[in-house]
Amino acid sequence: MLEKRTPIGIGEAVSKVMKYKQTGIVEHVSINESYGRYLAEELVATNHVPPFDKAPYDGFAIRSIDTKEASLSNPVEFEVIDHIGAGLVSLKKLGPFQVIRIMTGAQMPEGSDAVVMLELAQTSERDGKQYMSIKRSYNSGDNVSFCGEDAREGDVLVPKGTFINPGIQAMLATFGYAQVPVARKPVVGLFATGTELLEVGDPLEPGKIRNSNSHMIMAQIERAGAEVQFLGKLPDELETCYEAISKCIPHVDMLLTTGGVSVGDFDLLPDIYKKLDAEVLFNKVAMRPGSVTTVAQVNGKLLFGLSGNPSACYVGFELFTRPIIRTMLFSDKPHLRKEKAILQTNFPKANPFARFVRSALSVENGRLVVEPSGMDKSNIVMSLAGANAFIILPGGTRGFHSGEEVDVLLLEDTLGSVWPW
Amino acid sequence: MLEKRTPIGIGEAVSKVMKYKQTGIVEHVSINESYGRYLAEELVATNHVPPFDKAPYDGFAIRSIDTKEASLSNPVEFEVIDHIGAGLVSLKKLGPFQVIRIMTGAQMPEGSDAVVMLELAQTSERDGKQYMSIKRSYNSGDNVSFCGEDAREGDVLVPKGTFINPGIQAMLATFGYAQVPVARKPVVGLFATGTELLEVGDPLEPGKIRNSNSHMIMAQIERAGAEVQFLGKLPDELETCYEAISKCIPHVDMLLTTGGVSVGDFDLLPDIYKKLDAEVLFNKVAMRPGSVTTVAQVNGKLLFGLSGNPSACYVGFELFTRPIIRTMLFSDKPHLRKEKAILQTNFPKANPFARFVRSALSVENGRLVVEPSGMDKSNIVMSLAGANAFIILPGGTRGFHSGEEVDVLLLEDTLGSVWPW
Repeated sequence: MLEKRTPIGIGEAVSKVMKYKQTGIVEHVSINESYGRYLAEELVATNHVPPFDKAPYDGFAIRSIDTKEASLSNPVEFEVIDHIGAGLVSLKKLGPFQVIRIMTGAQMPEGSDAVVMLELAQTSERDGKQYMSIKRSYNSGDNVSFCGEDAREGDVLVPKGTFINPGIQAMLATFGYAQVPVARKPVVGLFATGTELLEVGDPLEPGKIRNSNSHMIMAQIERAGAEVQFLGKLPDELETCYEAISKCIPHVDMLLTTGGVSVGDFDLLPDIYKKLDAEVLFNKVAMRPGSVTTVAQVNGKLLFGLSGNPSACYVGFELFTRPIIRTMLFSDKPHLRKEKAILQTNFPKANPFARFVRSALSVENGRLVVEPSGMDKSNIVMSLAGANAFIILPGGTRGFHSGEEVDVLLLEDTLGSVWPW
Repeated sequence: MLEKRTPIGIGEAVSKVMKYKQTGIVEHVSINESYGRYLAEELVATNHVPPFDKAPYDGFAIRSIDTKEASLSNPVEFEVIDHIGAGLVSLKKLGPFQVIRIMTGAQMPEGSDAVVMLELAQTSERDGKQYMSIKRSYNSGDNVSFCGEDAREGDVLVPKGTFINPGIQAMLATFGYAQVPVARKPVVGLFATGTELLEVGDPLEPGKIRNSNSHMIMAQIERAGAEVQFLGKLPDELETCYEAISKCIPHVDMLLTTGGVSVGDFDLLPDIYKKLDAEVLFNKVAMRPGSVTTVAQVNGKLLFGLSGNPSACYVGFELFTRPIIRTMLFSDKPHLRKEKAILQTNFPKANPFARFVRSALSVENGRLVVEPSGMDKSNIVMSLAGANAFIILPGGTRGFHSGEEVDVLLLEDTLGSVWPW
C-alpha cells in the first residue's frame, strides 16, 4: 500500500505541466462587460487619434501669422466670425485678423493654425460684432492637438493577453470596439474529496473540521481568471468516483481535485488515475508545502490532484494550475510574477526542499518588504488570509535573517512572469 | 456667462467631500459569492482552531513516556490497537506500549500525547496483530497541533472593510460563515453629457469623437467596488436635465456626471445645480488635470461633476469619488494608497499646480520605479491604458529628474491610505 514516490524538481514539474497547455478561445462581449477580462486580440487603432487637428483648450482658433506684432504694449485685435462647439465643424474659413471661438476638443477651422486660450484673450463687442484682442504672439501649431499625434491608424496599442483596466476600456470605446474580443474564461471542474469534512453550514462535531479548501480554491480559480464548475464531493468508492470524473472531463478545460493524494491508506486518486488510463506526470515534487501535488493528463486534458492540506493546496494551484489558466487567457507571462523583497523577520528554519512561505508583501520607503503572514505550519488556514505573496526559500538553505533579500511571487497580480523565474 | 471661479486646495476639497461620507450597509451573501467583496463585519473565530488536539502528519499517536528508552541501538516496539482516519475519533484509550495509527488532521486519541511520523516507524505483523517500532524518543507534544493554537474562539481575525481574498474565503468556511456579511455595493448613478459625442458603435464623423469617458468611468466605479447605474446622456436642455437628475437622485447613493462643468459657453451643470438647490462644495481645484471638477450636495447626497476630458475625469473620480465609495465598503483607509517610487525619466515641466501624472509603476530590484504611461497631455486617452498609478508632483515645483524620489498613488489596490497622505 505504501507506494514509494520519487520527487522531481519544481522546474521539471512545471515544464511537464506546460507541455499540455492549450491556447485560449476568443469570444466577443459587449464593452459594458469587458472590464476585468483579458484581451484575446491586439487592440489596434482603427483611426488616427486625434482623428483631426483639434483644440485642446477652450479659446480662439487663429492664424498665427496675424499675431506677430502682438505684445504687452501692442495688443492686436481680431474679429470673432464664428463660434463652434465640440463636435461641430465651422463652415467658415479664417481671413486675416479673423478668429473663431472654439471649444475644447473641437476641430480646427480652415485657415487656423493655433489656439489662444480663453483666459489670455480680452473680448469686447461693438456694433453687434464680437472682437478679441491678445498681447502676445503665437507660433504655428501652438495649442493644437494634431491629427494622429497620439496614435496612427493601424498601430498596435495593447497586446493580447492584457487585463482590461479602466484606461483600456476608454481606448476600446475610442476605437469603436462595441464588441470586445476577450479570452473565454477556461472552465475548471472541481471535486472535493474527504467525506470526513463538514460543510460550511454544519455545526462542528468531535474530530471533524469544515471543508475550507473548496471555497479557497474556488476563489483562487476566479482570481486567476477562470470559471469554476463545482462538481461536489467525490464519493469514497472507486467505481462511483471513476464514473463521476470520466463523465465530467469532456465538459471542462481542466479538472481539479483537492485531497486524496497523500500516501495515506484512504487516498483514492492514484487508483482513479489508473482506471482512467491517465498518464501521471508526477506525484511528488521537491517542495514544501505541496510535495504530494499530483498532475496527470488524459487525452491532453490536465487533471490536477491538489493536496487536501489548505496551504499545500493553495501553493500547488498557484504554481501549476494558474499558468495553464493564464495561457488560455492569452498571456505570454502566465507564471506568478517574481520580484525581490527585503525580509523583515528571521526565518530560522532550514529548508531541505524549496519552500513557499505565504507572506504579506508591502512597501516601505519605496522598497518591497515581506514577512510570513502567519506561523508557517502547513495546516494553518490563518496564514493564508493575509497572504498576497509567497517567499521562495530555495532548497538546501539554512534559514534566513531579517534584512536579507529574498525572492517573492506576487499573488494579486495580472502581469505575471515568464518561466523560468 | 464667464463666471470667475476660485480654486481651492486638494486637501480642502477632499475634506469638503468627506464631510458627506456615509457608512455602508450590511448585506449577507452566500460564501460562494463573497470572493472579491468587502467584509462588513469583523471575521471572528467561532471556535478554537484546531478545535481539538490533532495530528499534523500521517503516523502513530503514542504515549511519549513509552519512548524514553528508544534509540538507534534499542528500538522499542508498540502494538497498533486501532486505526483512525481524519474526521473519525477512536473510542480506544492507549495503554502502555500501545499506539493508534492516525491520519493527518485526525483527533489525538485518549492517552496519546505525541505523534510519530509514518516514515520514521517500522511496521510489522505477527499472529494477526500489528506492531510498529521506533528508534528515537519523543517528548510530550511532539508533532501535535494543539486545540486553539492557531486561533481562540472569539478572536477577531480580520477587520471589517477587508477585501475578501482566497485565504479569507478559507477562513470564512472554517468558521462556518455560510452567509457572509459584506458591504452592499454603493450604487453610483452616471449621466454623460456632450451631445456632440458619438457612441462606441458609431462610425466616425468630421469633428466628432466617440464617447470614451462613460466606459472608462464605469470600469473605475467597478474597480472601486461599487455598482454603476448608467442613466444615459443628459439632454442639452435645462428643464429636461433637471427632471432627469432630480428623478434619479433618490435611487442612487451618489450621482456622477461627466462633462458640462468647464467654464464654457455650452456647459449646463452649474444651472442644474442651482435649480436643484444643491450646495456647490467647490467648482475649481488647484490641480492638473481635473481643475474644473465640481462637487455639490443636495440633502446630503453627493453630486460629482467630473470633467469631460478623459484624464481629468479619471483623476477627479479617483481623488474625490473613490474615498466615498470605499468608506461605504467599511474601509478606514478609503483614499488611494500612497507610496514612494523612483522616477525613471525626466519630467521637465514646471508645476504651478499640483499635478497627477498617469504612470506605470513597476518594481526593479525590489524598488518601486515609475514613469509616465504616456505623454502627459490631458486629452490623451492613450496614457490611461498603461496607468496603474499617479505620480504626484506638488504645485510650485520646477520639474523632476530621473532618479529622484516621488510620491505615487496606487490605482490597482484594495488597501488604501488614510487622509491626509
